[in-house]
Amino acid sequence: MFRNTQFSKITGIMKLLYPTSLKLDVASLEGFSVSLHSYDVKGTIPEDLTDAEVLVTWGNNADNLKDAAKRLKNLRWIQSLAAGPNDVLSAGFSSSVIVTTGSGLHDRTVAEHTLGLLLAAARRFDEMRDYQVQSKWAQHLGGPQPDRPTDRFTTLRDANVLIWGYGNIAKTLAPHLTGLGATVRGLARSAGVREGTEVYSEDKLSELLPQTDALVMILPGSESTKNALNAERLKLLPKHAWVVNVGRGTSIDEDALADALEKGEIGGAALDVFVKEPLPAESRLYKAKNCIVSPHAAGGRPQDAEALIAYNLRRFLAGQELKNVI
Amino acid sequence: MFRNTQFSKITGIMKLLYPTSLKLDVASLEGFSVSLHSYDVKGTIPEDLTDAEVLVTWGNNADNLKDAAKRLKNLRWIQSLAAGPNDVLSAGFSSSVIVTTGSGLHDRTVAEHTLGLLLAAARRFDEMRDYQVQSKWAQHLGGPQPDRPTDRFTTLRDANVLIWGYGNIAKTLAPHLTGLGATVRGLARSAGVREGTEVYSEDKLSELLPQTDALVMILPGSESTKNALNAERLKLLPKHAWVVNVGRGTSIDEDALADALEKGEIGGAALDVFVKEPLPAESRLYKAKNCIVSPHAAGGRPQDAEALIAYNLRRFLAGQELKNVI
Ligand SMILES: NC(=O)c1ccc[n+]([C@@H]2O[C@H](COP(=O)([O-])OP(=O)(O)OC[C@H]3O[C@@H](n4cnc5c(N)ncnc54)[C@H](OP(=O)(O)O)[C@@H]3O)[C@@H](O)[C@H]2O)c1
Ligand SMILES: NC(=O)c1ccc[n+]([C@@H]2O[C@H](COP(=O)([O-])OP(=O)(O)OC[C@H]3O[C@@H](n4cnc5c(N)ncnc54)[C@H](OP(=O)(O)O)[C@@H]3O)[C@@H](O)[C@H]2O)c1
Repeated sequence: MFRNTQFSKITGIMKLLYPTSLKLDVASLEGFSVSLHSYDVKGTIPEDLTDAEVLVTWGNNADNLKDAAKRLKNLRWIQSLAAGPNDVLSAGFSSSVIVTTGSGLHDRTVAEHTLGLLLAAARRFDEMRDYQVQSKWAQHLGGPQPDRPTDRFTTLRDANVLIWGYGNIAKTLAPHLTGLGATVRGLARSAGVREGTEVYSEDKLSELLPQTDALVMILPGSESTKNALNAERLKLLPKHAWVVNVGRGTSIDEDALADALEKGEIGGAALDVFVKEPLPAESRLYKAKNCIVSPHAAGGRPQDAEALIAYNLRRFLAGQELKNVI
Repeated sequence: MFRNTQFSKITGIMKLLYPTSLKLDVASLEGFSVSLHSYDVKGTIPEDLTDAEVLVTWGNNADNLKDAAKRLKNLRWIQSLAAGPNDVLSAGFSSSVIVTTGSGLHDRTVAEHTLGLLLAAARRFDEMRDYQVQSKWAQHLGGPQPDRPTDRFTTLRDANVLIWGYGNIAKTLAPHLTGLGATVRGLARSAGVREGTEVYSEDKLSELLPQTDALVMILPGSESTKNALNAERLKLLPKHAWVVNVGRGTSIDEDALADALEKGEIGGAALDVFVKEPLPAESRLYKAKNCIVSPHAAGGRPQDAEALIAYNLRRFLAGQELKNVI
């Protein structure tokens, strides 16, 4: 595609802008014919950096991105460190700018949080807390218990977990669930076995949902995933099933979910992402029965970002296809 | 020791009493020269069963056990299904009665709950809930975050977890923790490597505690474990360290712990067991800073109890040493 020599000829030495919103080991980005410049993701990019060709983003505010979309005329490639860079996609950059995601940098953090939410759901840490703050002992949650009641989701052991959106995060999560005794199945655009897990395509949804004890949604935010879980599909879930969403809020019809929760049509929901974030105080989800609200806290801490940037930078300079292109 | 033939001579056919407090597949206890009788763990044992030689206990109330200790004159063996049968031990049975525990039947349930508590601590599900019930978004817990701040326990990845009481439950728990990236060490009465984990004896405590991000206590309740975690030892923990207790409440000096929490001398505590249960409403632990109160909910669901009973029953009849003798 492009070669380093061409770049040098056209633009002199190429500029890469990296954010100061996280600690980056900048030394591990050296060694390329590229000059490295830090910038503030909450401010506007200084005039002398507006000829940059590469922009690395993390936690930029909307104004910063909107401004960058206008002023960075030479921009060719944005490396977001977010797995779902919806902020970059909606900022108005020219469609000729390549956008690569940080998918892979959040696998372990999001998998850990998701596992926590599933256990909080099974062991009802939310209800436990409501008793505790009143100095009350939640007797019904402790002591001798029936083993695996069929009308409740109480453990991952022998539970059927369906992961909708079977990408990097799902692949990292699945072994933790099977390790605790769950049966894991996946749902993605294409079917097939992925690292030992049977992944189905969406035409199998109506067969899979009725067999699901916990539905974990890890879908990206896009037109094709909008309201993926809607009223009709919620009705296919067993009455005891929990829904966990750590992908994007837009993949669930929040009104339909709040209805289902309030009517007790599903077991509960543990949500880390919402259509609007911060979730507005008037949202029914804060108070809906058996709903756990987590403030987009699953990821937020990219791991080994330098390795991805350096890997893609080398490929970019060599004119090779980049990793994680949207 | 004793042989089946001797028993038959002395007592005719031997009686085994099993509890109706859980679903047991009684058919899998048949085939021995023993008659099987169910009994109610909350009532008194009927007169015609008081010549029983074997008693299986699960969730018996104190009166039932006290009465059984007086009236079951021929009793030779109690198989408790609890991993820590402190109830049986304090009921006044003759010291000639062999007591075997249900250690092993709770490994997976307690490990799962403990993992949940550790993740609730790291991801602050307690604080999240306190915000949610006020329809508030806990902004500080979500969004872009520093990775592994040294002054907080925020993830199991790269965390040092010390498990004090390295028995069956600990061995089941450890792989889940290492799978999430933790470094696990154990503490028990004897040192050595157990299933790949380095286990230390208590003389190494003062070296290990200062290096601990999360201390998981899974000690049995006994004189030797009383107040194992006391004021002095709490002071050896880093300021950010969390204490999780799923063993017995008596292994922690609760007053010293409440002090440490209130003064912010440790990161927090997630407790499933208490000196007195239900935890009295006036306990400071309900309201102590960063304290999670779980109502003895980790286990309570023996798994494969029949296999343990049948295994020990065969050995008992054969005069062989029993498994899980206290
Ligand atoms: N809560 C948080 O803090 C947090 C943190 C990081 C990421 N996230 C979210 O998690 C999402 C997934 O991350 P990832 O790294 O696992 O992404 P990924 O590796 O790209 O995987 C995405 C998965 O979604 C599937 N998919 C996409 N569109 C679909 C559709 N219309 N129907 C069915 N399946 C569809 C893909 O199917 P194919 O495999 O068949 O292509 C793929 O399996 C991100 O996009 C981001 O929004 C949230
Ligand atoms: N929260 C719940 O719902 C729940 C459920 C089940 C069990 N429990 C509790 O968990 C406890 C442990 O269960 P388990 O099945 O893992 O028991 P286990 O297999 O008997 O293991 C007990 C461990 O504690 C160690 N230990 C005993 N006394 C000690 C002392 N004075 N100092 C240091 N270590 C000591 C033992 O050391 P050695 O290996 O060196 O002998 C062993 O490693 C039970 O006794 C019960 O009280 C709680």
